Amino acid sequence: MPPESTPRFEVLYCGDTTLDTAAGYLAGLLAHAGIKFQYVPSDRAVDEKLLASPWSLLILSDYPAPRLSKELHATVVSRVEKGAGLLMIGGWESFHGLGGDWDGTPIGDLLPVTISNTDDRWNCDRPLIVKQRAGHAIVDGLPWGTRPPLVGGLNRVQAKPGDKTLLTAEQFELEWEADAPKLTASASYPLLVVGQRGQGRVAAFASDVAPHWVGPLVDWGDARVSAKAPGTEGIEVGDLYTEFFTRLVSWTAGRP
Amino acid sequence: MPPESTPRFEVLYCGDTTLDTAAGYLAGLLAHAGIKFQYVPSDRAVDEKLLASPWSLLILSDYPAPRLSKELHATVVSRVEKGAGLLMIGGWESFHGLGGDWDGTPIGDLLPVTISNTDDRWNCDRPLIVKQRAGHAIVDGLPWGTRPPLVGGLNRVQAKPGDKTLLTAEQFELEWEADAPKLTASASYPLLVVGQRGQGRVAAFASDVAPHWVGPLVDWGDARVSAKAPGTEGIEVGDLYTEFFTRLVSWTAGRP
Repeated sequence: MPPESTPRFEVLYCGDTTLDTAAGYLAGLLAHAGIKFQYVPSDRAVDEKLLASPWSLLILSDYPAPRLSKELHATVVSRVEKGAGLLMIGGWESFHGLGGDWDGTPIGDLLPVTISNTDDRWNCDRPLIVKQRAGHAIVDGLPWGTRPPLVGGLNRVQAKPGDKTLLTAEQFELEWEADAPKLTASASYPLLVVGQRGQGRVAAFASDVAPHWVGPLVDWGDARVSAKAPGTEGIEVGDLYTEFFTRLVSWTAGRP
Repeated sequence: MPPESTPRFEVLYCGDTTLDTAAGYLAGLLAHAGIKFQYVPSDRAVDEKLLASPWSLLILSDYPAPRLSKELHATVVSRVEKGAGLLMIGGWESFHGLGGDWDGTPIGDLLPVTISNTDDRWNCDRPLIVKQRAGHAIVDGLPWGTRPPLVGGLNRVQAKPGDKTLLTAEQFELEWEADAPKLTASASYPLLVVGQRGQGRVAAFASDVAPHWVGPLVDWGDARVSAKAPGTEGIEVGDLYTEFFTRLVSWTAGRP
């Protein structure tokens, strides 16, 4: 999908360190899809003026909760109830994480998942295989069954009753039996949960869009996609990864 | 293993972008093991004086071949034949890669693997499971059989006859059959090959020590290791990952 001449909608994207590091991934995907965005690095506060701009979707990814004042938390909740979207993507500073601290905050409470009040990071050396759990515009038609991607880690959150779990990450113990790998199921974690809050859509993706937690998902698909947002290094990623995150962002923003 | 008061030996470490990005991983591991190192970022040339310093091991990881002059290539070959070690770690600018271009160079020819003359990057969304292929001080006693790690990608190189392949990365097609994942073997790649050149040891690790190619290997093990080299962000990684790379570096440097 080439960049369009007029932006489809506007995103306020906060986190993933800086544009020239981890944020280059999601920024590249947004640029590739022709979606305009304003960006705030993980170590900067969101200012009131920026939050008052006409964004259709707020994305928080590795962005600590205390960077937003109480007043701005309330503004976000109000904007979502009136029709804006809210997407949290996992990471060491997302959900609870190590310094994310979204549990017990107005924005955290709006998400379709319950957030732990202790470190919820799961850095996993065992296979975490993605499994589709429900039909939905974000996930339908992608080859979850015939070519499921793996992720490398996630925040351990719980889906809220009434919200919809689209994907889980299934964890397996792995061992070699001569030349055959043997997998034994050992845990299941919510990976993508979506919901509705008033007129707005909310989504929680518990793994990351960027290394290292994104894992092999970043290379999902046979075709390679090269993209580069201004101020970033540029990315080269899989086409199915690109399609999945573009759909996630578009749906949460209220777009088809 | 806490840092020791006197360095065990000296490493000249070139590549992995910068200390405050990808190089923070290997730099952290070296600091954790009490191994002193001199560092050269990927975009800087190695100067003659630094190359004349008393290093026991040269590590090249995501460092383009043309950054070393012809004369310095020859110096490295001579130093290795007299007893120094040479380790190349994979990445987009290692082996051939995309701009690594080590094929047909004196240092590239010294490695225990044959390097392609075209793009050898393998960004893989399918499971790449590590398998032990031979006994050796670098790999013995680690749980390759009972808890094999996965990697996310590698440079496709070929082991040279006469050198020793210790690890391979076994690629599988993956699909869901109801709730059971089904794996079907589809390819095998050399992952770790070691050899001797005169008095020196050489090693090629075809995946990466840092995200994203390192994949779930970075979190291998139950215990977490936190380490921080000066000028880096610090890392938190798996204890078996730490043990494996510390052994790889130590052995290649000629140490027990």
